[in-house]
Order: sequence, then C-alpha cells, then structure tokens
Amino acid sequence: MVLAETQHKVEPDKWPIAQNVRNLEASIIREILKITSQPGVISFAGGLPAPELFPLKDLARIATEVIEKYGASCLQYSLTQGVLPLREVIALRASKSGTPTKAENILITSGSQQGIELLARVFIEPGDYILCENPTYVGALQAFQYYQARYATVEMDDDGMLVDQVEEKIRKFKPKMIYTVSNFQNPTGITMSLERRKVLLGLGVKYGVPVIDDNPYSEIRFTGQPVPTLKSLGGDEVIVLKTFSKTLTPGLRIGWMNAPASIIRQFEKVKQCTDLHTSTFGQYVIDEYLTQGLLEPQIERIRKDYLIKRDTMLKAMKQSFPEEVTWTEPEGGLFLWVTLPKHMSARTLLDKAIQQKVAYVYGEPFYANGGGENTLRMNFSNASLEGIVEGVNRLAKLFRDNM
Amino acid sequence: MVLAETQHKVEPDKWPIAQNVRNLEASIIREILKITSQPGVISFAGGLPAPELFPLKDLARIATEVIEKYGASCLQYSLTQGVLPLREVIALRASKSGTPTKAENILITSGSQQGIELLARVFIEPGDYILCENPTYVGALQAFQYYQARYATVEMDDDGMLVDQVEEKIRKFKPKMIYTVSNFQNPTGITMSLERRKVLLGLGVKYGVPVIDDNPYSEIRFTGQPVPTLKSLGGDEVIVLKTFSKTLTPGLRIGWMNAPASIIRQFEKVKQCTDLHTSTFGQYVIDEYLTQGLLEPQIERIRKDYLIKRDTMLKAMKQSFPEEVTWTEPEGGLFLWVTLPKHMSARTLLDKAIQQKVAYVYGEPFYANGGGENTLRMNFSNASLEGIVEGVNRLAKLFRDNM
Repeated sequence: MVLAETQHKVEPDKWPIAQNVRNLEASIIREILKITSQPGVISFAGGLPAPELFPLKDLARIATEVIEKYGASCLQYSLTQGVLPLREVIALRASKSGTPTKAENILITSGSQQGIELLARVFIEPGDYILCENPTYVGALQAFQYYQARYATVEMDDDGMLVDQVEEKIRKFKPKMIYTVSNFQNPTGITMSLERRKVLLGLGVKYGVPVIDDNPYSEIRFTGQPVPTLKSLGGDEVIVLKTFSKTLTPGLRIGWMNAPASIIRQFEKVKQCTDLHTSTFGQYVIDEYLTQGLLEPQIERIRKDYLIKRDTMLKAMKQSFPEEVTWTEPEGGLFLWVTLPKHMSARTLLDKAIQQKVAYVYGEPFYANGGGENTLRMNFSNASLEGIVEGVNRLAKLFRDNM
Repeated sequence: MVLAETQHKVEPDKWPIAQNVRNLEASIIREILKITSQPGVISFAGGLPAPELFPLKDLARIATEVIEKYGASCLQYSLTQGVLPLREVIALRASKSGTPTKAENILITSGSQQGIELLARVFIEPGDYILCENPTYVGALQAFQYYQARYATVEMDDDGMLVDQVEEKIRKFKPKMIYTVSNFQNPTGITMSLERRKVLLGLGVKYGVPVIDDNPYSEIRFTGQPVPTLKSLGGDEVIVLKTFSKTLTPGLRIGWMNAPASIIRQFEKVKQCTDLHTSTFGQYVIDEYLTQGLLEPQIERIRKDYLIKRDTMLKAMKQSFPEEVTWTEPEGGLFLWVTLPKHMSARTLLDKAIQQKVAYVYGEPFYANGGGENTLRMNFSNASLEGIVEGVNRLAKLFRDNM
C-alpha cells in the first residue's frame, strides 16, 4: 500500500551484500547433489551414510520415551554448551576409549560443520594461515573462506600428511592452526600413521600451534589396526571435532567439540550468538540412544556393511578401470580417491558421467591452493551393491573412451 | 607420550583467539539464567515460554508418525534451504494471513537467532550502521557485535519507534539495514502503530535501506486489534524473521526467514558454511504438526494463558509497586518493561533481588549505545500465577526499600 506511492524500489540484487559474502561460492558438492538427486542417477558424489542402516524403530521409540521421561524440559530452551546428560555420556565414552574427558570439555554443536565454523571464527583473522593436508575437506575450506584464511598445504602419501614438510611451513607461514582429518580422510580415505601423529603433535607443541583433528570417521574402521587418535596422544593440545552424523544419523545435526574447558568457554560465547544452542530434543534423543547402549552395536552394523560396499567397489574398479587409473584403498570411512592420468580433467568428465547417469565429485575443490584436476572422490556408503558395480562399470567405460 | 618429551606447552589462555571474539561478551541474559535456574528463585528474567503448555502428547505421537511416514529420509542430510514440505506449509500459512509467499521465499533457520546472525553476516561490514529501536533485542546486539556494527538508535513511545527521527538518522548514518521488533517488542512489549509502519517502510524504500522485521511474537496477541505486519505492507522490501519457539516449542530450534528468492540464495550460501542445514527430523516434526492443523488451537491456548498471566502481573504491580515506578501494558508477547526513578540502578538492585529469590533482566544491555540504567525487563509467560504475585511483591518491597 505505502509502497505504491513511491517509484524507488529496493532491487534484490542491489541489496547491500557484504564483500566476503559476495565472494563466497556455493558448495560445489551440494550443487552436484542437487543434480544427482535425480532418479536413476547412481551417485558416488555425496557423503551420505547408508539410509537402510538408520535404526528407525529404535529412534521412534526413544523419541517417545524421551518426552515421557523428561517432559517439557526436553523441548525447552537449554544451555548453549549442551544438555548435561549428553555431555556426560559423551565424556564417559571418550574416557573409556583412551581420552580422559569431563562434561566441561564438551561443547555440543549443530553438526560438526558448526564446529569447523566456530573454529574459524575463534582463531582466524583475515589473512591468517591454516596448515592443512592437500587435498582436504571441502566443507572446511568453505567455512574458512568467509574468514579470509590462507593455506599452508602439506602433501600426503598413503601414511597421511608428509610431516617432514611441516616445520618449514610453520616457520614460514606461522599458521593459526593445524587442521587435519587424520582418520579415513575426507576426501582421500587415508589415515595418518602413528609415527606421523607423534611428529605432528610435537611440532604443534614446539611452535604453539593448536592441532585440530576433524574426526567424524575414526570409529568406522573395518579392517586393519586402530591408530591412537591425536586427542588421546596430545591431550590438551588438541581440539577434536566429532559427530553422530556418520555413526547414527546426520538428520539430527548433533556433533561435538572436545577441548580444554577454558577454550570451550570461548566457543560457547560465540555459539551463543549464532544459534543460542543446538536442538534440545535432538540432544536428549541421542543421549537416550547412547545410555541404552545402542550405539556400539549400531557402529558394528555399519562397519560390516561398509566393508562389503568398499570391497565391492574396489573389486569392480580392479576389474574394469583402465590400468593408468589409480586409487586409494581405505581401511574405513566413506570415501576413496581416484587419480586419473595427468592430462585428464575429472571436472570436464563429470558432465559426460552425468549423461551416463553416474556421478562423483571432482577433486579440485578439495585443493586449498588449486590443483588436482585429474582427481575425483568416490563415496561407497550410499549406493546399493548393484549400483556400485554398475556405476563403476559406467565410469570405467567413460575413462577408457576419454583417455 | 610425545608431549612429555618437550617443555613447551600451549596454555589454553594463550591460544590465538581472534580480536573480535576476545571483545565479545557472553550474553548477560544467559549468565543471569544460570544464576536464576537455582531452585526457589522466582524468575522473570528469561524469555521462556510456559512449559506446561507444550503439547507433549501430540509431539511424541508425531515424532513416531513422521518416522513411519518418511522413513530414513527424515533422518538423512537435507537441503540447506529447508525441507520442501515445511517450506510449503509455512508459505501457505503466510499467504493466508496476508503475505503472499512461495516455498522459494522461505529459508529454514536453526532458531530465529540464526536468522539474525545470517543477516549480520550478509549485510554488515565493520563499522556499518544498523538503525534500530532504543532499547532493542539484546540477542541481536550480541550477534551484531561480532561484525563490528555501529548503531543509529531511535527512541520509542507507546506506539513504537519515533519514525519522525528516522529520515535524519538515515541521512546521517547511512545504515545498512533497519532492524525492528515491531510486535510486542523484546524487551518493551510495545507494538508499532500502523501509521508508523507505513512511514518507516516509505523511508526504507526511499533510501534503499532493507527493513528487517524480527517477529517472533505477532501471533501471541491477547487483547486489542491486530496491526498488519511490515511484511504484509512492504512485500519484497521487507525481510521477516519468524520462529516456532514461542508458538510451539523452542527446544526444536526451528525458525525461518521470509524474503525475496534472490536474497534467500545469499543467505542459503552462508548458512551452508555454518551448519549445512537445520535438523531434518525437527523440520518434519513441525511440518506434520502444522499439516495436522494443530498449531492454531495451540496458539489459542497460549493466548488465553498468557493473558491471565499478564493480567495477574499488571494487577500485582498496580497494587504493590511504588507510584514512582512505571511500566508498559503490552497487548501480547512475553514481556513488559519497567522504569524506575532516574537515580535508581536496576543492575545494582538485581543482586539484592536474587538474595530475595526473585530475578529480572536489567535494561542496560538492551541499549545499543548505553543508557537505560533505571529500566528492567520482566517476563510473564514462565512463572506460575502464585509465583508472579509473590515475585512482584518481593520486587515492590525491594524497590520501596531502595528509593
């Protein structure tokens, strides 16, 4: 009504968007997911856990039980740090697995993506360096981008980050943190060896650089021997980000940070501004699920299932991929990493792949400082066994036709 | 192990905390809530909805029904913008109430606090001005603080923001946005008149300044005539933030933003970095609750209950407060606003109040540029009727003893 009286109009594309936001690119993975969610596409693109393993009946039962048990308080506002019973059960579980932890060390986050976002906000000022693996998790790079981080990247081999390059990079770039996905890394599936963990922690301590272990996958190991986590080795020098997204369900968006209590205070203060707190109800549901002892058998089911899926994918690749193509053979997690001959572009090939109704994520966005044109990430947790074989065969033909 | 080998140790208080985060103060309200959650304290301090009105049985039933109906997809990763059925039902409801809206105009947020945070991130660069009421919602000021916003504040009377001061302030400070809580404002309980809404929108359009209506309370009107919302009057020139926290339950942390689709894209991009998406399960639960037609009768129950609570508080204040003390008489919402004689400090008095086991929030933190020492906010939705009378009487004695 009032607006009809004037000729001026705020055009949406003329709204005063801050420069850091204008510069921000939408996540390539989520854009690819929009395309590949079309029916009939065999997708190795996402990082989705297998939906057929979600414990639907247990969760439905527990949702009701939690409301009966806690009444209105499981639906009311709650502490920014997270509800105490969940923090206690998480701390107990961490302590049992070799990382002495109290409830005061835990901050519940809205998925571990929020943990990454909070880390960037607390530690990074424009132009600061982050030391990370090359390639590394694209969702972290995206969160860091807003804060105008720069990157000191360290190459990897099958034992993880090449730590003998780290000291020089720390001296040269004075990074504000060391960010690593040390277990079954997203995107490569590689796990850092014990020896390298020790060296990396020693360097973090020597130069006063906090070590951040983004660790959603360590529990999903299906072969080989567990390696002690960075947190269990490094204690108060390490901040670890964890999540229930891969072990239980991503749809509740519950993750956590484990850090010294004094630094948790800083993160709590920042989280308060951003969303007050994480879903009270979701926290109580997960607390009850853990308290009833259901998580460990659930993880066991996931391990068994993903092992079969990984083996199916590896076997199909061995049988059909051209010999010039190489790939990692992860002992856990959700991903493996494919390297094509140098002259090939996984990005260019993706269009053709989608025409053939098969999808992956090309590797470039995982490289903080560019590169990786001939690499791609494949997820093996979400497709069916038949889908894995058929999808790998389609890719094999595509690679062969374009070599 | 490795750490024992070195003398250097990262002291938590020496961690490299970014300056903007060091400067951040923890929310005074949440700090007060920690104190007042002690048993026996009658608290008017929080903004908690009445827990006895939460529809526990319906929500328990629906939590189960949603899992039966949608299976794993209600627990899987989902779109950053929010799940489509919920966005559709929200859009339909908005359209019916006079604001033509499509699903593409809706972004689901993790509570409306996240909406405020996203607004600040998208629009504010260091030093930018925000035009807002004086006083205004402290949680917004806290979110804006990280982004180094400055404030062009506009005084209020019983009809809301004094809009005849706005044009001069826009010219002088060139604010990036106009932020208003136009309905039953937090903290004052005041509602902006229709006439002033029109003037404010006209000025926003004339100078190309987006108008942000933070509107959690408009549906909780228990007396007087509804005033058309800024969004229904201003259409694409207005961004509105809404939430289910006051009408259903805060513990699910589901709010939304209603804005032109092109600007929703910007917010979606930013939200993606911060938490990927809001709880899929929480969204489906609320969608089902709305689809079953349960929200309107629930709001009706809340209106009736809060009217009685408001009347009880007003009556007790009239009977017992010293005549030098004044207060607002809101027609809806959760709060009223008390003004003490000029020489009194509500902040100083709070310590004595807590000794008397009664609590409020002192007014200063709601003033963006300082002031308001003699003001305080009282919430009437959370305490029992007996608690309201007893708490007001304790405060009356305290005020009288300290005049």
